[in-house]
Amino acid sequence: MLEAIFAPRSVAVVGASPDPAKLGHRILKNILDAGYSGRIFPIHPRATQILNLPAYPSVEQVPEPIDLAVVVVPAAVTLEVAEACGKRGVRGLVVISAGFKEIGPEGRVLEERLLEITRRYNMRMIGPNCLGVIDTTTRLNASFAALYPHAGQIAFMSQSGALCTAILDWSRVQGIGFSRFVSLGNKADVDEVTLLQAWGCDKVHNRVILAYLEGIGNGDEFVAVARQVTKHIPVIAIKSGATQAGARAASSHTGALAGAEHAYEAAFDQCGVLRARSMQELFDFALAFAYQPLIPGDRLAIVTNAGGPGIIATDAAVHCGLRLAELAPATIAALRAALPSAASVYNPIDIIGDARADRYRVALRAALDDPNVDAVLVLFTPQAGSEPEETARVIVELSAGSPKPVATSFMGAASIGEALRTLNDHKIPNYPFPERAVAALGAMVAQRRWVDRPPGEYVHFDVDRERVRALFARVRSEGRVELGELEARQVIEAYGMRLPRSLLAQSPEEAAEIAAHLGFPVVMKISSPDILHKSDIGGVKLGIRDPDEARDAYELIEYRARKYSREARIWGVLVQEQVRKGREVLVGVSRDPQFGPLIAFGLSGIYVEALKDVAFRLAPVSRQEAAEQVRSIRAFPILRGVRGEPPADIATAEEIILRVAQLVTDFPEIVEMDINPLVVYNQGEGAIVLDARIILRG
Amino acid sequence: MLEAIFAPRSVAVVGASPDPAKLGHRILKNILDAGYSGRIFPIHPRATQILNLPAYPSVEQVPEPIDLAVVVVPAAVTLEVAEACGKRGVRGLVVISAGFKEIGPEGRVLEERLLEITRRYNMRMIGPNCLGVIDTTTRLNASFAALYPHAGQIAFMSQSGALCTAILDWSRVQGIGFSRFVSLGNKADVDEVTLLQAWGCDKVHNRVILAYLEGIGNGDEFVAVARQVTKHIPVIAIKSGATQAGARAASSHTGALAGAEHAYEAAFDQCGVLRARSMQELFDFALAFAYQPLIPGDRLAIVTNAGGPGIIATDAAVHCGLRLAELAPATIAALRAALPSAASVYNPIDIIGDARADRYRVALRAALDDPNVDAVLVLFTPQAGSEPEETARVIVELSAGSPKPVATSFMGAASIGEALRTLNDHKIPNYPFPERAVAALGAMVAQRRWVDRPPGEYVHFDVDRERVRALFARVRSEGRVELGELEARQVIEAYGMRLPRSLLAQSPEEAAEIAAHLGFPVVMKISSPDILHKSDIGGVKLGIRDPDEARDAYELIEYRARKYSREARIWGVLVQEQVRKGREVLVGVSRDPQFGPLIAFGLSGIYVEALKDVAFRLAPVSRQEAAEQVRSIRAFPILRGVRGEPPADIATAEEIILRVAQLVTDFPEIVEMDINPLVVYNQGEGAIVLDARIILRG
Repeated sequence: MLEAIFAPRSVAVVGASPDPAKLGHRILKNILDAGYSGRIFPIHPRATQILNLPAYPSVEQVPEPIDLAVVVVPAAVTLEVAEACGKRGVRGLVVISAGFKEIGPEGRVLEERLLEITRRYNMRMIGPNCLGVIDTTTRLNASFAALYPHAGQIAFMSQSGALCTAILDWSRVQGIGFSRFVSLGNKADVDEVTLLQAWGCDKVHNRVILAYLEGIGNGDEFVAVARQVTKHIPVIAIKSGATQAGARAASSHTGALAGAEHAYEAAFDQCGVLRARSMQELFDFALAFAYQPLIPGDRLAIVTNAGGPGIIATDAAVHCGLRLAELAPATIAALRAALPSAASVYNPIDIIGDARADRYRVALRAALDDPNVDAVLVLFTPQAGSEPEETARVIVELSAGSPKPVATSFMGAASIGEALRTLNDHKIPNYPFPERAVAALGAMVAQRRWVDRPPGEYVHFDVDRERVRALFARVRSEGRVELGELEARQVIEAYGMRLPRSLLAQSPEEAAEIAAHLGFPVVMKISSPDILHKSDIGGVKLGIRDPDEARDAYELIEYRARKYSREARIWGVLVQEQVRKGREVLVGVSRDPQFGPLIAFGLSGIYVEALKDVAFRLAPVSRQEAAEQVRSIRAFPILRGVRGEPPADIATAEEIILRVAQLVTDFPEIVEMDINPLVVYNQGEGAIVLDARIILRG
Repeated sequence: MLEAIFAPRSVAVVGASPDPAKLGHRILKNILDAGYSGRIFPIHPRATQILNLPAYPSVEQVPEPIDLAVVVVPAAVTLEVAEACGKRGVRGLVVISAGFKEIGPEGRVLEERLLEITRRYNMRMIGPNCLGVIDTTTRLNASFAALYPHAGQIAFMSQSGALCTAILDWSRVQGIGFSRFVSLGNKADVDEVTLLQAWGCDKVHNRVILAYLEGIGNGDEFVAVARQVTKHIPVIAIKSGATQAGARAASSHTGALAGAEHAYEAAFDQCGVLRARSMQELFDFALAFAYQPLIPGDRLAIVTNAGGPGIIATDAAVHCGLRLAELAPATIAALRAALPSAASVYNPIDIIGDARADRYRVALRAALDDPNVDAVLVLFTPQAGSEPEETARVIVELSAGSPKPVATSFMGAASIGEALRTLNDHKIPNYPFPERAVAALGAMVAQRRWVDRPPGEYVHFDVDRERVRALFARVRSEGRVELGELEARQVIEAYGMRLPRSLLAQSPEEAAEIAAHLGFPVVMKISSPDILHKSDIGGVKLGIRDPDEARDAYELIEYRARKYSREARIWGVLVQEQVRKGREVLVGVSRDPQFGPLIAFGLSGIYVEALKDVAFRLAPVSRQEAAEQVRSIRAFPILRGVRGEPPADIATAEEIILRVAQLVTDFPEIVEMDINPLVVYNQGEGAIVLDARIILRG
């Protein structure tokens, strides 16, 4: 996939220039300098030779096949160029030129026409409005970046070109290498999903994929593709525009529609994309994945020549999802035999300040050999007698071939330059402070959990879809978007969820009869498609205990509804069995413009509303995801049972999430839905939907 | 203060050695190399000259006065040396030698004796078991550190010597300078409090104080001293051993008693110490404070030549307590006039990719001049045509003398080395990624809020202290530590908190009479000093509606109490007015070994118990602290009123916190106390203590 762009046999630079000040010159020179081995054709209206290569007035004139055209001409000319490329059989375009969607409606039209041409000729396109692409595996530098990165196994895509240049600049000094490096630009054709899919097929060159994203075009597709890729290659994303203020900046920047934060959180979570909270973290994590084997578990051993940093790392480990390994007795014995008596042979293994490389050797070997250890963090502080280089070499030697990752924090700088180079050259990820090393190993644990997770089990419930379809059709035919309570009840029922038994009464006498039939006490509620907040108008009465009360309630409710609105259509009063108490939760749905239906789960009631303790998942939801969702609210202990209470019927709560997810997947016209409250009884006793609200697309 | 240690007129090195492999040699050499201008006396049993200085066999033989003695002899010899120093009139000791508290009980005894000697002769001592001290203002390097730091205005103390060496090593390359640099060692005499007090008096040299702490010896004193110092000099601490696992490592490391995390949080919060979450943050924050004026407010302007980093910084700003400044119309007009049309003249000010230094000049000047802006973050990504060095010089020029801090994130490394040097040389704090710059400015906002905060108002309520004293005496005389409910009620009453009216009944008939007197409904509860969890044994009955029910309840409760325990002393049954409902909170007290009484506040009930939504403050508590405490629980909206509810009587809740704080300060023997629930009524209607539990020291 995308070979025409990353591994073309030949490249034309349309807009190549003999003038060193021009981008078109810089790009041609970059292609030459990086050592690309295919044919290169500069295209320029008049020049016959640029940078010692024969130039051509147009792609039509090029005597040989062209795989890739890098386009760096004024925006207005790009259509013509793309057309010519298409005719000439070009298969890939990298459009550097700006002046498209990012400048407003006019540019947007131009971009759409450009895309239409590439589609027509079956070409793939990066950009427009981008810095270009770099592939160190084919030594192609089709960009105007000032620097060419070291070769390495990190693939990086960025929606910000400037960030690309900054990262390149920085990575040169850090000695960090890349396999592919792409500035996505306006993402008219190739976007994050296309790249993810293409890069996900090449585990050999891409050990980790990084993405700087301001928005995601097609959420569904992103989730579907990422879910596959992340099982084999870790994908780390930094999504900016996460805050309100940030989101404003994002839409003025690339016109990206910034998705709701909750939807992104849920999406990344459900497709195994690791989220970096800062640029620093993005690269810290990348280094660990690019350099070391994936951590087999979460048990960390720490080897240190200083107590303080050992404590710092221990603190950090607990915050980052790692556990301190409990060393095996044999390890402790081996350490005790070999280390001075002042050393600590437990974890953190403190080989104390005067440790030379030999002591690091003993401790690191013991830790790596210990079956209770999944990863080792080696801390080094320069002290009198320390041997930084020799220690680095010992680490390189012992970690080679080990299935357990080793990370280091050689603290300091002045006296450890050579050691740092040795570590980096041999792919030992080093971090200037222990917390950063620990955080990177913590990201590995998250990836390990994702990889080990069994494939999602998607249940399909046997439901009465037709009934809902017909019902929605009727609602729409009446020009409504909100379902009345009776209608919502029918939907809930059709999708197999339990409701309190209830019947509609149309007179006080009928209310009394129904109530007697259902059994007292009952609840009575106004039934009208025009009254949404029934309680607010006094349209709900609880605890009705006998036929007389039922008759009175009917009249009172009807009177209040009339008083509230003369025009409201009143269907009657719903008489409902009064259900016994249980733990009340809510299951809600909203629809994210990028990711589709977002299912919310939380406890019901004002406490939790005030605490905003709600967990989200995107539909479709797997069994496991529903289970995690329920467990990820902070108030979960209340469902599990506190103070000796029996656990709630959590399995049923999960099932309701799955049924709701199926419903909103079956009916994309549902834009909003609330089951609130859902009364969950004790384990084994089920749950009952007390109230539901459904709103269709207008 | 501590002049003998940091600014001695003369220094003796006891244990100086002619052998370059020895620490005693290294220290002497360090003192010489750093350029210390006072007299230096090597002390060695036999040598007559070391490093070209005349040596003496003992301090007694030194012909001139000695201010400071650096001691680097075996632990066993230190007592003798200290004694000799004391006699000789030495005023300060830096004891490098190890072999004290850190090695166990034997060492602890030695350390106590050493301290006793220093106290007797009125000497101050750093250490033992430390790396030494460095003062760049007096060019004193009384340490065995391999490197001498750049001079600067950051004072640093560390409980880990190894961390000191690592930081020194690292700071040399980063170009970060220090005023004082102290390895605290075992803190036998001089500890974090002493240093804080000494350094707090020298604003000129110490613009910011950093501390790496594993434990704090005297919490009260720390809070009292820090509260003063932080008003003038920012203090940033990293406290390790914060997690359970970390705390274990800490106590095995220096024998420091790791305090409860909540107590540290509360202490730092109440005395204005900024807490860094990582080593990286510690120095990131320090740089901003050391280099720039304190931020006047929280409104940030961002100037950038790239959209992506601008969005990243915007996101980060919101997370770090900053607001994006709304630029004044004049600023926007000025920017619009001077910048190209593609630029964004709103905040972030995007001067776009081809910006040279002149455009940075326009934008930075406009931002600094804008009255709506409190600080400016300048982002720079190297792009074609960028002028990193010139841009750095523009920033240096414009920020000079401005009362608003300027921070930068020049991203990259390879092409911006010279610019980074210029920025650092001229005290512009630069960070490799925008998020770190923003976090540092966010720390400044926290410091600004602290500095601007009016002095704490400590209320003293008129209470009946004597009554409580007498009561506690009686409880103790009976060999009890837990107060019975009636006793706890008396304490609550004596400290001016409202209780439901209640009286003790000792027969069914009396219960009926009391209930009639209080007015039905009433609550009845067993009264026994031996039954703590009254509800659990069925010893509480609610909603008693008439005299018959009162009589029945009495008998039932008495029967159950007897069944529960034949031996329990039963005082009778408490008959209490049944109070109306309100919002239920808890006010609790526990006693932290380092910081004393820790007051907890949260909502009552299982929801909040499950959510662990509790805020802590150390007593004494000021009015403002109580107000913040109440507002800092996540569930605060419930007290403020949600869904149209009126607000609760928050002022009374605050007052109860203050009264409880006064109570536990007056009576240090209270080790645990719970007011749970405190029923808080609507604003203006007060609050009532429903149940209280008090436990005294055993």
